[in-house]
Amino acid sequence: MRPGNPYAADCPTRQLLDRIGDRWTVLIIGALSDGPLRYTALATRIEAISQKMLTQTLRALERDGIVVRTVLPVIPPHVEYELSSLGSDLLATVSVLERWAITHIQDVESARRTFDANAKAQASPAR
Amino acid sequence: MRPGNPYAADCPTRQLLDRIGDRWTVLIIGALSDGPLRYTALATRIEAISQKMLTQTLRALERDGIVVRTVLPVIPPHVEYELSSLGSDLLATVSVLERWAITHIQDVESARRTFDANAKAQASPAR
Repeated sequence: MRPGNPYAADCPTRQLLDRIGDRWTVLIIGALSDGPLRYTALATRIEAISQKMLTQTLRALERDGIVVRTVLPVIPPHVEYELSSLGSDLLATVSVLERWAITHIQDVESARRTFDANAKAQASPAR
Repeated sequence: MRPGNPYAADCPTRQLLDRIGDRWTVLIIGALSDGPLRYTALATRIEAISQKMLTQTLRALERDGIVVRTVLPVIPPHVEYELSSLGSDLLATVSVLERWAITHIQDVESARRTFDANAKAQASPAR
């Protein structure tokens, strides 16, 4: 069996990287960390996610076996989403990514200010 | 100081999540894990990355303080890229993402086959 290598152009791991590193994937998986949620609860928890994005990402995560979609037999039907065991495993990984962003946003913003100030200084040198 | 919350629409951590979870970011940071590389070496290591994507991502990572760009004073000038200390810290995080993709690609592909077979069965029910 050939091991995955995302540096190879045609390796499916490269495309999977996109899925699991995606902003909406990270936020949806994090939102489901405490248990199943209905669509509307997800839409509320993840501010300003468009309906199109939420629907698309949930469907992709369901197809990838990361999220389980359950239609509850009540009237009107309720649809719930929860993490599969594969999704719970992924949660640990994407949580690290989320935590990194939260911990280091200030370092990154400080670096951006320095970079932009230097770029501006180079664009208009002292006479 | 307000803690970062990527679930809030206007929090800069949400946008930072995009940067660090991006496929090209993960691959560039991984490629630089063994030390500095020149632009052409990066382009070779990451198969089929377009020049535009490589240039854009490197510049964004430089601006974010994750990658350091050094122009070596030789003729013709050589430009090298390497991880900053912030970038080395991020390497540990994105490596986990890369490893997850490599470890679980077969689970995901198997889930996709099942999903697609079910979708097909529902589209054309037995008569």
